[in-house]
Amino acid sequence: MSSGKILVAQGGGPTAVINQSLAGVVLEARRHRDVQLVYGARHGVRGIVDEDFVDLTRETSHNIEMVANTPSSALGSTRDKPDLKYCQEIFKVLQAHEIEHFFYIGGNDSSDTVRIVRDQARAANYPLRCLHIPKTIDNDLVGNDHTPGFPSAARFVAQAFAGANLDNASLPGVYVGVVMGRHAGFLTAAAALGKKFADDGPHLIYLPERAFDIGRFLADVKSTYERLGRCVIAVSEGIHDASGVPMLSQLAKDIERDAHGNVQLSGTGALADLLCEEVKSKLGIKRVRGDTFGYLQRSFIGCVSDVDQREAREVGEKAVQYAMWGEHSGSVAIRRTGFYSVDYELQPLEAVAAKTRTMEDEFIAPSGTDVTDAFRLYLRPLLGSGMPDAFRLRPNPVAKVLKR
Amino acid sequence: MSSGKILVAQGGGPTAVINQSLAGVVLEARRHRDVQLVYGARHGVRGIVDEDFVDLTRETSHNIEMVANTPSSALGSTRDKPDLKYCQEIFKVLQAHEIEHFFYIGGNDSSDTVRIVRDQARAANYPLRCLHIPKTIDNDLVGNDHTPGFPSAARFVAQAFAGANLDNASLPGVYVGVVMGRHAGFLTAAAALGKKFADDGPHLIYLPERAFDIGRFLADVKSTYERLGRCVIAVSEGIHDASGVPMLSQLAKDIERDAHGNVQLSGTGALADLLCEEVKSKLGIKRVRGDTFGYLQRSFIGCVSDVDQREAREVGEKAVQYAMWGEHSGSVAIRRTGFYSVDYELQPLEAVAAKTRTMEDEFIAPSGTDVTDAFRLYLRPLLGSGMPDAFRLRPNPVAKVLKR
Repeated sequence: MSSGKILVAQGGGPTAVINQSLAGVVLEARRHRDVQLVYGARHGVRGIVDEDFVDLTRETSHNIEMVANTPSSALGSTRDKPDLKYCQEIFKVLQAHEIEHFFYIGGNDSSDTVRIVRDQARAANYPLRCLHIPKTIDNDLVGNDHTPGFPSAARFVAQAFAGANLDNASLPGVYVGVVMGRHAGFLTAAAALGKKFADDGPHLIYLPERAFDIGRFLADVKSTYERLGRCVIAVSEGIHDASGVPMLSQLAKDIERDAHGNVQLSGTGALADLLCEEVKSKLGIKRVRGDTFGYLQRSFIGCVSDVDQREAREVGEKAVQYAMWGEHSGSVAIRRTGFYSVDYELQPLEAVAAKTRTMEDEFIAPSGTDVTDAFRLYLRPLLGSGMPDAFRLRPNPVAKVLKR
Repeated sequence: MSSGKILVAQGGGPTAVINQSLAGVVLEARRHRDVQLVYGARHGVRGIVDEDFVDLTRETSHNIEMVANTPSSALGSTRDKPDLKYCQEIFKVLQAHEIEHFFYIGGNDSSDTVRIVRDQARAANYPLRCLHIPKTIDNDLVGNDHTPGFPSAARFVAQAFAGANLDNASLPGVYVGVVMGRHAGFLTAAAALGKKFADDGPHLIYLPERAFDIGRFLADVKSTYERLGRCVIAVSEGIHDASGVPMLSQLAKDIERDAHGNVQLSGTGALADLLCEEVKSKLGIKRVRGDTFGYLQRSFIGCVSDVDQREAREVGEKAVQYAMWGEHSGSVAIRRTGFYSVDYELQPLEAVAAKTRTMEDEFIAPSGTDVTDAFRLYLRPLLGSGMPDAFRLRPNPVAKVLKR
């Protein structure tokens, strides 16, 4: 006899479209006659072990649609990275509540949690379907063409650099914009899509896929500045030297580490400030400005890709369909099938769990400070419709009267 | 005999709609039969003394409309603050090119430049009409209900805080967002418009109109954090202690000063980092994140108020009409005439020049860390149509099975 109970939760960093996936799960599940109750856990796995559930069956479809269009995890999220014991706790709660389907929307750490919980259920011979629904602005899940959340964040970054380039052209100098992404440079590389005219910035892009050398950086900036009288630079927060030590940890006083032992990179302007200081002092350029896009790039309300919204909704819907009809666990993956169309498939949890995709070599220019056309072609359709466009006055110089 | 030549230039920090004012001037001027040629100076007053002009009469109307919708000064801008000698140079060039009308789009420093140039022309008995067209994201021009550029930047700040609040609710902690504004807190106060539900952030707003005390700040944060388990804070980059010393200059190593002798506040994340460090070390709160909105708030492409666009266009148009039909110099000002409508009038240059408006007391709550309803009513119509809205799931708690 089936309980008809499903549970959905959201983990890791929020995105602009993570609630689309939530809505996809909830609305699709509520259409199935086998589903009696749809629970949501507050703050991810933390809410599961605390039995902090909300009954989403009692929510109106209308409000779910409204929430779907709202950025950031509506159920709340967590940075907890469950170990085996934690996962045993999770499983105990799922069992106690007779949950039959568990959907976890998150990144590669979340997929690993789903895998361990699935193993627990298997070992206990408890019929639990465990589905991982992809989400991450970093675009670092293997086996996916791209991940929901990345396109909207990429759109923010592209729009930010399009604007920063115009600002920098108006008041020339050096501009450094620091973008999120510890190991994968996809989001930083999206800055390139803010470029329209040949002399537009970003003129230099520094990715964690290439070792960062401060001397080489200064030489790059100097040469661009001498050529154009200005320089717009996109930098990943995760840049590191040849030995893999993050640039940030070479200067921050108090290194904060997360549950995964990683150095906390976001939430500080230190990296931008360091690089600006280097440019000012070593190159003697006066107007040097640094911005750290910080949480704006993943949380800003009102900057979203409609393609991303659609796909994030569908991965949630598909997860329910796989669980209901396929009756097995796995991770939903996006496959590109046209220019531009996608389809979905279920991949084994082992294929995704705790693995990290980084930018493919074909996406990075030989210089190491630019992207390729292959990357532009890859990213452009993801940004969606209505991308703002920048125009400039054409040169119609007037002859001087007083001077030659 | 009239030369029929006009000159337009843009000064100071770019805004999202400064090109609307440029388009207003150019398109309106080209309709007047008395106008033969419309010149634009590249990079503000700097381009005037360098005779670096473009002939805007040769630009297509269509491209001018496209440029009008593009943020950041299309003619380029400058931070030069002309003294008397510099203004004499400007006047010499205007005379040599037989310019009859000079339009300068800028803030209070720009209006002062217009005033001095007008005085030069008067003294030389040269028939020059000098019009200042208001622009500044700081909203600090006296005699104006508000200034073009402010509403769009305010919209960015409101949207940023609406999103940051959702992010912070999802992953609770303390969030500090630093907003531009040296003396006037209007833009920082706009963060309040990102708030929807009673427990939404920003929970605390620090304005340059009130002396900042770090002890009081920590007490405010502590009390909010204890009450809600999280705290979202909006801080003006211009906050200073009771003696007027900017908080930033109390910690930055190399203080950069601009042409006006002011400490460079933007382009560094130092203030946010300092405040976060204080909260972490003094209050023992682990998850503390700081963002500095930096140049994004004035340059981000794709975040603009349609009301701001319309008004920025009109102040440019009106400037030409005042010059052509009123035949006198002055500064165009926005007056509010309804909820919501505006009209324009020409005020004497002396009334605006080099003066700074700050937030009126009636806009600041007695606590000093919030705005009043009067401010919300003042700002809301300026943000324009299509403001994104945030929705949340309603509480439908599920009974616990394992725990009490």
